[in-house]
Parts: sequence; structure tokens; C-alpha cells
Amino acid sequence: MTITIIGTGLIGGSLAISLREQHLATTIIGVDNNQANLERAKALGLIDTYLPLDEAFAQSDLVILAIPVDAVLHLLPGLLDKATKQVIMDVGSTKEKILDLVKDHPHRGRFVAAHPMAGTEYSGPDAATSQLFLHKTMVLCDVKRSDEDAVEMVEDLVEKLQMRLVYMNAKEHDLHTAYVSHISHITSFALALTVLQKEREAGRIFELASGGFASTVRLAKSSPDMWVPIFKHNRNNVLDVLDEHIHQLQSMKSMLENEDYNSFYKAIQRANKIKKILK
Amino acid sequence: MTITIIGTGLIGGSLAISLREQHLATTIIGVDNNQANLERAKALGLIDTYLPLDEAFAQSDLVILAIPVDAVLHLLPGLLDKATKQVIMDVGSTKEKILDLVKDHPHRGRFVAAHPMAGTEYSGPDAATSQLFLHKTMVLCDVKRSDEDAVEMVEDLVEKLQMRLVYMNAKEHDLHTAYVSHISHITSFALALTVLQKEREAGRIFELASGGFASTVRLAKSSPDMWVPIFKHNRNNVLDVLDEHIHQLQSMKSMLENEDYNSFYKAIQRANKIKKILK
Repeated sequence: MTITIIGTGLIGGSLAISLREQHLATTIIGVDNNQANLERAKALGLIDTYLPLDEAFAQSDLVILAIPVDAVLHLLPGLLDKATKQVIMDVGSTKEKILDLVKDHPHRGRFVAAHPMAGTEYSGPDAATSQLFLHKTMVLCDVKRSDEDAVEMVEDLVEKLQMRLVYMNAKEHDLHTAYVSHISHITSFALALTVLQKEREAGRIFELASGGFASTVRLAKSSPDMWVPIFKHNRNNVLDVLDEHIHQLQSMKSMLENEDYNSFYKAIQRANKIKKILK
Repeated sequence: MTITIIGTGLIGGSLAISLREQHLATTIIGVDNNQANLERAKALGLIDTYLPLDEAFAQSDLVILAIPVDAVLHLLPGLLDKATKQVIMDVGSTKEKILDLVKDHPHRGRFVAAHPMAGTEYSGPDAATSQLFLHKTMVLCDVKRSDEDAVEMVEDLVEKLQMRLVYMNAKEHDLHTAYVSHISHITSFALALTVLQKEREAGRIFELASGGFASTVRLAKSSPDMWVPIFKHNRNNVLDVLDEHIHQLQSMKSMLENEDYNSFYKAIQRANKIKKILK
């Protein structure tokens, strides 16, 4: 089938590689505001060709929105207006605002809301890789509001990508992703700012930074174009979990101030329980 | 030469593997309070034998303290009392308190204070690996207070391990490691506690946790036996950097509360500068 990928960056480009490898796509058309990205995606063989959105849409069986969530909000209603046979899926990191916007659209059924729990701190077509989605989780939201054939097409795609499929409603999705994804990014941005603020001798960071620091701070390389809209969409959940995180840090700080190393020890033991969840 | 390694866990065990591979050690003797660790280290071939501390010490050319920093404080003066020909090195994560304790010891020169900027979130002999130190940084502190032959022996060891050598004074060391190592661990412990507190459905974390979450939170698996003494020794520096970190998080929180997405965008752009330091 012919697939249009809107947004030929890390996620769109990686999808293109995998969809081609799995023989799901006969033709992949790229659509992107950024002409340099399109040229690069074509040169890398991620897409077969690029076209203006309307032309690409008309020729496609499946249209994938791999763009920041505010751009999804902006484009989706107009695409649904034109959607007759096409299936439209997004791969955005928030779901409530997007699904709320189109909930009464007459062609709502053509849309499948998806979120692959995969990514890296890099962006752009050159960051695309073939292994990005392998054995990761794909969340599909509110599938009951999507047409049966549309859901089947996306489920087939998820299976071919060898991803684990999870179903949720949009509210649940946004709550859980605030905990297990969005807060990690805030922590990492704040940690980078802390170190850059306190540690004026960049050379010293470079010499001393070990694997632990690198892994904690690597998400701080993530693009603001992608992340500001996510925090905007999921503001209430993110604020709630950020409050709790600051509270935990303040509590550890008090233990240190009071030299209450017994409580500090117990807090670390409680934190160690994350071992049971993350192998 | 004969090397005694006190503490046959992750660091001591990994050193044992590398020292043997590099033909630096003819015999490696293990010393450990934990008999099960000794048996396991011997079964794994990390050590040739194990002995009580005094016997091991008497036979050794080099004695390496690979134990929590409070245990280093406890053992080091007594070892120095007996040190005639022996070189003693530690591999602890803090340096000021240790070096201050022995600064006037008549055998101070036999001690070389070292800190390999390497580790993982795992502990015990089974966590030992041959590649742990490769191309990582080894910090030596206050080497001018150590005897020339002792420094040369440790420098030779560092070179054979293919590590990058950096010299610092103890004060500098403890300041910089608070920024690039100790704060990462606090952040990670607090993040694990946040998620475990907010996210009662452990199954959901498991399903949704992607690489980003795993990398931010992996240090939260680290042992309190190792880390509480580090935070205790480096309390003032850690409190200082923790204050700044909480301030950065509160500032991001205010931006979200006030829906000041312009400032949020700029903050992320500033955090992105960590790219220049960490490739």
C-alpha cells in the first residue's frame, strides 16, 4: 500500500525504514515543512518521493502523522475532512487534547491514535534507525471510536513491527506517560541546567562524566520543538508528578541537612524497588 | 606482584579481572567481611585465594581498598600503621575526609588516593566485568603527598587498564563529583520514589517504560551501603548542588503553571547545550 509519512524526522524516518523492511509499504511519500529534511530523507532512502500534503494524501492508503503534538492538533481536522478511504494515525506523546478535538468529527472513525513508547534524544532524518521500535510498546487509545478496518490496519502494522500492543483510554495514557516518560525529560533538562549552572569548567565535566551521569542527562539533548507541546498538552498531569518529584528531592535534602542517614538509607532501599519493575 | 583486594564486589572484582588480564598481578588475594562474596569471587576466578586481612596485607605489594568510603575511613589508618613496603590505594568516590584523616600519618606516603569514574548500578562479585574501566577516567588526588614509587606503581596500573589519568586535589575532586556523579544518583533515587509513589499500577510502568525512563532511573538500583557514606562524606557539596537542582525544577514548574511556554522553550534550549559536553 501507499503510505504518507508527515514529518520525516527520527520517528517518521524510523517508521519508514521498518515499514519498508516489513514489506508493508509499496510506496512511501514524505511530507515535511522542512525542505532540507525531505531532501535528506530521500537521499537516505527513507522515502521514495515527496509531495505537497494534499497530493500525497489523495494517493495514500495510510497517512502517519509523525510531527509534534501541536502540529497534529493543527493538521488533523483538515485531514479528517478529506478522509474517505484513508486511515490516519498519529504517533504523538499526548492523546487527550487530540482525541477531544476530533471526537465529534463525522470521519472520526478513520483516525487511530497511537503512541510508540520509543525514541532517542536525537532528531531529524539522520537519527532514524531500523531497530527503534523492535520489542517496544505501542499504545492505541480509544480504539472503539475508530473504524474496524482502520484499527485492523494499524494492529497489523504494530505486529509487523514486532511491537507489544497495549490499549488504553486517552486519559489513562496521558496520566501514565507523565509518570514514566514526561517527568524523566523534565528531570534531565533540570539536571543539565544544574550542572551547566554550577560547573563553569566544562572541561572538568567532560573529564569526569561517567556512564551514570551520561545516562541520567542524555534526555536533556531532546528537542524543544517536540517537548514544549507535550508539556503544554499534558500540563496538569506533569505538574502533579513534578510536585511529587520536588517533594521527594526536598525530603532527601532535609535528611541530609539533619544528617538523618538512617532515613536516607531507607529511602534508597525504597527507591531500589524499581529493580522489580525495570530489569 | 601480589595484590590484595579488600572488597570483592563490582569494583574490586572488575579490577581483579583487569589486573590479571594485564599480567600486573601474579597472585590476587581477596579480603571481605562477607564470606559468601569471597567464595563467589573465588568460584568466578576473580581472586586466587582469600585470607584474613593481616595475613593478606603482609604478603602484598599492593593493597586496594574497594569498599564503601566509611569503611575506607575505618580501615586505612590501621593499614598505614603496618605499611612498610606496601602501596595502599583506595577507589572511593569521596576524597577530602579520607585524605584529611591520614594527612599527618608517618606512613602517609604509602597511600595513593584514586577514584575510577566508572561503575554500574549493580553490586557484588557477579556484577564484575572486564570492560568496566576501559577508556574511563581515573582521578588521582593529592599525589604530591604520596611517595614517588607508590604513585609510579598506581600510574602504571592506570596505564595498563587503558584509563585516562587526571590529577586533582581532594577539595576539587569532591566538588566536581558532586556535580557530575552524586547529584545524578539523588535525582534517580527521587525519580524512582516519585514514580513508585504516584504509579500504583506497577504493571503499567512495566508496559510503558521506554528506554528514556530506564536510563534516567537506572541509577536508582544502586546500593545504599555504598551511597549513604558518599552523601555523608560529601554532604556540603551535595546539598549545594541539590539546592540548585531543586531551584531549576521549581523554575520549570513555575513556567508550566504560568503557561510561559516561551521561557520553557528557552530553558530546554539552554539544557541542550549539554550536547557540546556529552557526545
